[in-house]
Amino acid sequence: MATPFSMRWVLVTEGKERRLDPNDNLFEVVFDGYHLFPMNEHLEVRRHEKSDQIGTADIEQLSLKDGKTLCHYRLVSLYSVN
Amino acid sequence: MATPFSMRWVLVTEGKERRLDPNDNLFEVVFDGYHLFPMNEHLEVRRHEKSDQIGTADIEQLSLKDGKTLCHYRLVSLYSVN
Amino acid sequence: MATPFSMRWVLVTEGKERRLDPNDNLFEVVFDGYHLFPMNEHLEVRRHEKSDQIGTADIEQLSLKDGKTLCHYRLVSLYSVN
Amino acid sequence: MATPFSMRWVLVTEGKERRLDPNDNLFEVVFDGYHLFPMNEHLEVRRHEKSDQIGTADIEQLSLKDGKTLCHYRLVSLYSVN
Repeated sequence: MATPFSMRWVLVTEGKERRLDPNDNLFEVVFDGYHLFPMNEHLEVRRHEKSDQIGTADIEQLSLKDGKTLCHYRLVSLYSVN
Repeated sequence: MATPFSMRWVLVTEGKERRLDPNDNLFEVVFDGYHLFPMNEHLEVRRHEKSDQIGTADIEQLSLKDGKTLCHYRLVSLYSVN
Repeated sequence: MATPFSMRWVLVTEGKERRLDPNDNLFEVVFDGYHLFPMNEHLEVRRHEKSDQIGTADIEQLSLKDGKTLCHYRLVSLYSVN
Repeated sequence: MATPFSMRWVLVTEGKERRLDPNDNLFEVVFDGYHLFPMNEHLEVRRHEKSDQIGTADIEQLSLKDGKTLCHYRLVSLYSVN
């Protein structure tokens, strides 16, 4: 009688993202649990919760199923580190 | 970077409700965590998650603060047991 | 800077559902806007908001994309009308 | 059978905020509709949706009632303009 949704506004990938197309900036990442993100807005991307911002992305799709959230996002900018 | 909200659609009081006014059917109950209920609609009320329905209530107010949810509800019907 | 999600707890199909497999009770329906339903719980199914319950279903998947919600549900019981 | 919640992650005051105590940085603002914000996190504050950031605030309380959201927030920094 309860479905937990976690409202998030920073995309923390934990390095588990997968590029969907080598010619496109579209990525997929799967999270445990049901997570809601702002849709089609520029969000901060980090590799870990405590690490620095590595880029900016727009969430294009969220699929909630079997206690997991599949997230498709488009990387709109990437901070290069030299 | 994440705020968990639990979406609920049955009001489970655990017997912790408090009547706000002896002349009115308005009650208060506090839950740990942030919970969202349908607002101003007839919901099923149970004492425990696995027990039977004891009545019907409308949620009139939800206050989220300090990791708790204060819920004000109006009991619109009570199933008497004899 | 705002993403609206509508929390729903009755599945109103408006007759727009599509059976995904003739040998299975899995259906698909698309809603305008982003809608959240209780996941993997028995929900009431109606054809219209004001009509009677026609069955019971479990939501198995919600996909939010382009301002629409694609919902996959399994019909667990159907009320026959003669 | 539906309760709309709008998920927001920038606090847009429209200049309608009210200071709750002259010796404290606690403010109150009321929004039409039910809005959810990240709780107890540093959020960007703007006067209007398209204007610049004027400060940073933590949401301390959200009260949902009668189709409105009463929001208590603590201003943790203010950008002065000279």
